[in-house]
Amino acid sequence: MTKLAGLAPVHFQWQVRERIAVVRLDRPERKNPLTFDSYAELRDTFRALAYADDVDVVVFASNGGNFCSGGDVHDIIGPLVGMDMKGLLAFTRMTGDLVKAMIGCGKPIVAAVDGVCVGAGAIIAMASDLRLATPEARTAFLFTRVGLAGCDMGACAMLPRIIGQGRAAELLYTGRAMSAEEGAAWGFFNALHPADVLEDEALKLAARLAAGPTFAHGITKTQLNQEWNMGLEQAIEAEAQAQAICMQTEDFARAYRAFVAKEKPVFEGN
Amino acid sequence: MTKLAGLAPVHFQWQVRERIAVVRLDRPERKNPLTFDSYAELRDTFRALAYADDVDVVVFASNGGNFCSGGDVHDIIGPLVGMDMKGLLAFTRMTGDLVKAMIGCGKPIVAAVDGVCVGAGAIIAMASDLRLATPEARTAFLFTRVGLAGCDMGACAMLPRIIGQGRAAELLYTGRAMSAEEGAAWGFFNALHPADVLEDEALKLAARLAAGPTFAHGITKTQLNQEWNMGLEQAIEAEAQAQAICMQTEDFARAYRAFVAKEKPVFEGN
Amino acid sequence: MTKLAGLAPVHFQWQVRERIAVVRLDRPERKNPLTFDSYAELRDTFRALAYADDVDVVVFASNGGNFCSGGDVHDIIGPLVGMDMKGLLAFTRMTGDLVKAMIGCGKPIVAAVDGVCVGAGAIIAMASDLRLATPEARTAFLFTRVGLAGCDMGACAMLPRIIGQGRAAELLYTGRAMSAEEGAAWGFFNALHPADVLEDEALKLAARLAAGPTFAHGITKTQLNQEWNMGLEQAIEAEAQAQAICMQTEDFARAYRAFVAKEKPVFEGN
Repeated sequence: MTKLAGLAPVHFQWQVRERIAVVRLDRPERKNPLTFDSYAELRDTFRALAYADDVDVVVFASNGGNFCSGGDVHDIIGPLVGMDMKGLLAFTRMTGDLVKAMIGCGKPIVAAVDGVCVGAGAIIAMASDLRLATPEARTAFLFTRVGLAGCDMGACAMLPRIIGQGRAAELLYTGRAMSAEEGAAWGFFNALHPADVLEDEALKLAARLAAGPTFAHGITKTQLNQEWNMGLEQAIEAEAQAQAICMQTEDFARAYRAFVAKEKPVFEGN
Repeated sequence: MTKLAGLAPVHFQWQVRERIAVVRLDRPERKNPLTFDSYAELRDTFRALAYADDVDVVVFASNGGNFCSGGDVHDIIGPLVGMDMKGLLAFTRMTGDLVKAMIGCGKPIVAAVDGVCVGAGAIIAMASDLRLATPEARTAFLFTRVGLAGCDMGACAMLPRIIGQGRAAELLYTGRAMSAEEGAAWGFFNALHPADVLEDEALKLAARLAAGPTFAHGITKTQLNQEWNMGLEQAIEAEAQAQAICMQTEDFARAYRAFVAKEKPVFEGN
Repeated sequence: MTKLAGLAPVHFQWQVRERIAVVRLDRPERKNPLTFDSYAELRDTFRALAYADDVDVVVFASNGGNFCSGGDVHDIIGPLVGMDMKGLLAFTRMTGDLVKAMIGCGKPIVAAVDGVCVGAGAIIAMASDLRLATPEARTAFLFTRVGLAGCDMGACAMLPRIIGQGRAAELLYTGRAMSAEEGAAWGFFNALHPADVLEDEALKLAARLAAGPTFAHGITKTQLNQEWNMGLEQAIEAEAQAQAICMQTEDFARAYRAFVAKEKPVFEGN
């Protein structure tokens, strides 16, 4: 197994404390745009997380009052204009691979969204499992504003499942910003918190998840993805198998013994 | 065809009146937990419903101020701890088979949820077609609290379709209770009613459905399941076929004749 | 390519102005019912739209204070009663083909819903991409009221994705009207506007979409359909390919150049 506590990425901040990794983009003066390099390094980091045994939960945090301003216009959009199809597809697949890596990393991801959360930044929030935000969060899938389609990194598949097909269509066609209040009312954000406590609340939620049962949380994440387009009866059988696996974990026995002893269970992730 | 009016189950209450079956768990002093026996008998009963010609709608009611407290800790969770994989899978498949039987029974199910509605109880509510509740209803998919994954009896497939992927993820990862107000705002509950009228309201809704067209309601239920993971164009063709079948029922002709005569149609279910 | 500006349909109104087609049913004294003829002509028109190069967006408008009262009881339901299976399936497939044509036309459709919006009228609104309404809009999937199933023209597949499975089930089983307020709260309507400005607001929204990037909007529409029942990872790859296509459009370069020049991009749809 891999240890990720010592990871020192070049293109974003990374800390691991008490089995929770906190990642944040690190160009706050430009509202944290993504670059070719940060995309690739994020993708590799989330891929490595699947094998890390010292991290159970990830918090994708904001920095300097903003979450992420998306692909940098000068560093990314400029070079893409005029690039040949091979190069373009390599880029769009790299961005898609970041989302696949987030989905496949096997650990819950909590996004803590303050301020600007647009373009690929909105996708990173969308691809997280849980989302907290401040009242100042402004989320926009603004791909159509730069001449592109709303289908970016899985948005046409995922956003309708989170906020409904009609609302997703509006955001994806128009690129307009979704306010924090709309995001909470529509189920995009799980809760809103003032900016000065947002990260603490995200860490509290992450700590609750890190307290386990983390093996079972990984199975929950796997099944939410696996069952995405299964038939309902197939999904029920898939869950019968997945839950039977969880029933052979020691955490299940720990919970039972704690219940009988009228204590709080202490999970260990196996 | 089977008659279910005379059914006398051992592990839950069962009454049939005016083509509406009312089922309720029957251990109110323990908030109506499920046992191996009640799971199996519920599964067999919902399977039999598919062939019953004296029941058109089911109300799954509460008892003593609570809906269901889920799998009994002593009767179910205890024995599961230490059971071998063959036994575990037999159990998780039995619970999944209850959901499959509810989906496959061909009659609308109205859940009337008061008080505690947790674990497998929350699943029974989720697997019903319509859900009414009291303001006191507390619904929790608390599988992670006992060391298990959120994927139980189809929850990772069904809950996101009812309340959205983000809200479902929160409930399934954390096991926290959803309040009745949240349930109504999020579309889990169709309406809230005070406890003293909840069952009457559920019976009223059931009577409306039992008034027909019951053959067509069965097709609606079938198609909601059939189209779960169909392509959109395939779903449209499937509905063309299913609706053409309904257009050959006498109930369709009855509705037309009633309209022309400026009367209310009386459906007969054929 | 086809020009649709000159189209003079017999069974509904049709105007094209500034690349926006406005279609409206034209029997306001009967709240705009559909007939065999208007179904067929609408289907053919939306099919032709896929090849039209003078229309970028469609507004499906109301007329005389109502959107559409569904299939005409005398002109449609009467003849269907007693028709043989071949004829019935030809009819249900024709209605389904209208929805398929709306989905496949490649241009965003904005429904502007005032007053009565029931039966096949509710389906036309549902099959549009965006929906605006007045506070007086009353939308009902009232198929069960005429003895039929809720599965009509794709409703069991589409409505759950827009408003959630539980709310959709209620509307489809009972046929009850959804108020405009419910429609807005549930995500069926994107916004409500007073009747005297509804159409202006719809035209404003359409103009915004017609300002482009229209090629990319067509890809967004395609992908929302294509990814309907894809696996999540397959959807992400599909979007990588689709977005790479958009990155080779001149509109993408136009947006970049406008950004660098601190100007508003002028899209041309290629």
